[in-house]
Amino acid sequence: MHAKTYVTVRYAETDRMGVAHHANYPIWFEVGRTDFIKLFGTSYSEMEAEGMMTPLRNLSAHYLLPALYEDKLIIRTWCTNMTAARIEFSYTVKRINPDGTETELCYGSTEHGFVDAKTFRPCNAKKRMPELYDKMNRNIKIFD
Amino acid sequence: MHAKTYVTVRYAETDRMGVAHHANYPIWFEVGRTDFIKLFGTSYSEMEAEGMMTPLRNLSAHYLLPALYEDKLIIRTWCTNMTAARIEFSYTVKRINPDGTETELCYGSTEHGFVDAKTFRPCNAKKRMPELYDKMNRNIKIFD
Amino acid sequence: MHAKTYVTVRYAETDRMGVAHHANYPIWFEVGRTDFIKLFGTSYSEMEAEGMMTPLRNLSAHYLLPALYEDKLIIRTWCTNMTAARIEFSYTVKRINPDGTETELCYGSTEHGFVDAKTFRPCNAKKRMPELYDKMNRNIKIFD
Amino acid sequence: MHAKTYVTVRYAETDRMGVAHHANYPIWFEVGRTDFIKLFGTSYSEMEAEGMMTPLRNLSAHYLLPALYEDKLIIRTWCTNMTAARIEFSYTVKRINPDGTETELCYGSTEHGFVDAKTFRPCNAKKRMPELYDKMNRNIKIFD
Repeated sequence: MHAKTYVTVRYAETDRMGVAHHANYPIWFEVGRTDFIKLFGTSYSEMEAEGMMTPLRNLSAHYLLPALYEDKLIIRTWCTNMTAARIEFSYTVKRINPDGTETELCYGSTEHGFVDAKTFRPCNAKKRMPELYDKMNRNIKIFD
Repeated sequence: MHAKTYVTVRYAETDRMGVAHHANYPIWFEVGRTDFIKLFGTSYSEMEAEGMMTPLRNLSAHYLLPALYEDKLIIRTWCTNMTAARIEFSYTVKRINPDGTETELCYGSTEHGFVDAKTFRPCNAKKRMPELYDKMNRNIKIFD
Repeated sequence: MHAKTYVTVRYAETDRMGVAHHANYPIWFEVGRTDFIKLFGTSYSEMEAEGMMTPLRNLSAHYLLPALYEDKLIIRTWCTNMTAARIEFSYTVKRINPDGTETELCYGSTEHGFVDAKTFRPCNAKKRMPELYDKMNRNIKIFD
Repeated sequence: MHAKTYVTVRYAETDRMGVAHHANYPIWFEVGRTDFIKLFGTSYSEMEAEGMMTPLRNLSAHYLLPALYEDKLIIRTWCTNMTAARIEFSYTVKRINPDGTETELCYGSTEHGFVDAKTFRPCNAKKRMPELYDKMNRNIKIFD
């Protein structure tokens, strides 16, 4: 179970090297997470409204080939691990070529902590959002 | 009375045209406002902590010459008008050349409303922050 | 004749005020222009490959209501004027509400010069790209 | 031997979580690299003018504590490895507290390939820029 997100490279996302600047990929990963959460019938907006946030702890990205202005990209997002305290996602970013084939440009992963929206201190996602936690956890086991 | 802010063009701020992307100028204007407010012994952080925010209503920018990667820029920020409901700023962005002379690259202005941080509805800055309001207002009259 | 562009507000596009930062709107305008040019069977990439660029001269934006994270937006882009030396676009940004109605959040305009990609000096778009120029110019006359 | 870069968190760099968005750190790392290269009497601009570029291959970042709007940050940049084909940098991002002490917020590393500016294919930095290569390489050995 993974989310598919479609992005077209924006002019503002390019740099003077003529390619999409590498700092955009973490942003595209995040757009992927937004779509992933929606697969479970909720959203980051709702999670934050419930008082839980998921700040980034660790980020890694591996760049294979550059993305160019107007390139059509597909970001795939998976949840690779989840505990009451943390959640991990993996991503691939591929260019959709004019002939429909895909070329991998970048892959990466992020690890997030669950924190209370007001105190920014760790909170227990399993207790805080038991329904969502169970739903997501089941899907990791089945689809990973 | 105006603020002087020094910025060096970042690689990530360039685009495939090889120049600083135009969407960075409103961000540099904002860095200028941050410094301008500090001239009055307070800060945006403190204003927002007091429950008042100043979202943008109108933006205009006029681009004369491009800024390049690693260019040293100076942003000058003035307050050009202020009422209990609104505040206006003007800006110039100039390149500091190696010989110390300056070349104007862009000028612009922004107009902001005063709103309550929680409700996002208009609030009266004169009543909300009378001391800051008086201090800023005097400086507009004297220095404009 | 105008382009319709769909954008969903990204988390990275929000600021600590809880709304989409105003500097994103010029970027969304630009995404709109990208789509507008495509209506004429060409693209910015191709125009730049032909040696012509269109740096921004003037930008104005008027903000009515804030856009929030995950809001679905529609950007409409028109060409409002065009000469051999310059081109102007207008934009509206509206939120698509869950019931399908639209709420205007921002409108604005941009004016661009035609310049040579290598020298960055003004060039004559009518001579440089006569076919595209005629095609676009007819559409302004008919649809404006 | 390392570069020290001072950055103040911009309003536009915050997100609705109220902290600096994580995608800014790779940009701050890059500002650190720009300053690091300058320690060797050259610049990225000059390297690119010489026809060599250094696109990112790998990025990692580890986030310990959030940075807030108006926080004063110091980025330290080291070169940790260098061959004719690749170069690696490490970074720390620390908040400079009002009392002058520093608090680590983030650390990370980047790995870059040397490529030809026109073909984007790997090039030999040792042959392409022997003087700079030797100068940097000596400093890794001595100061690492």
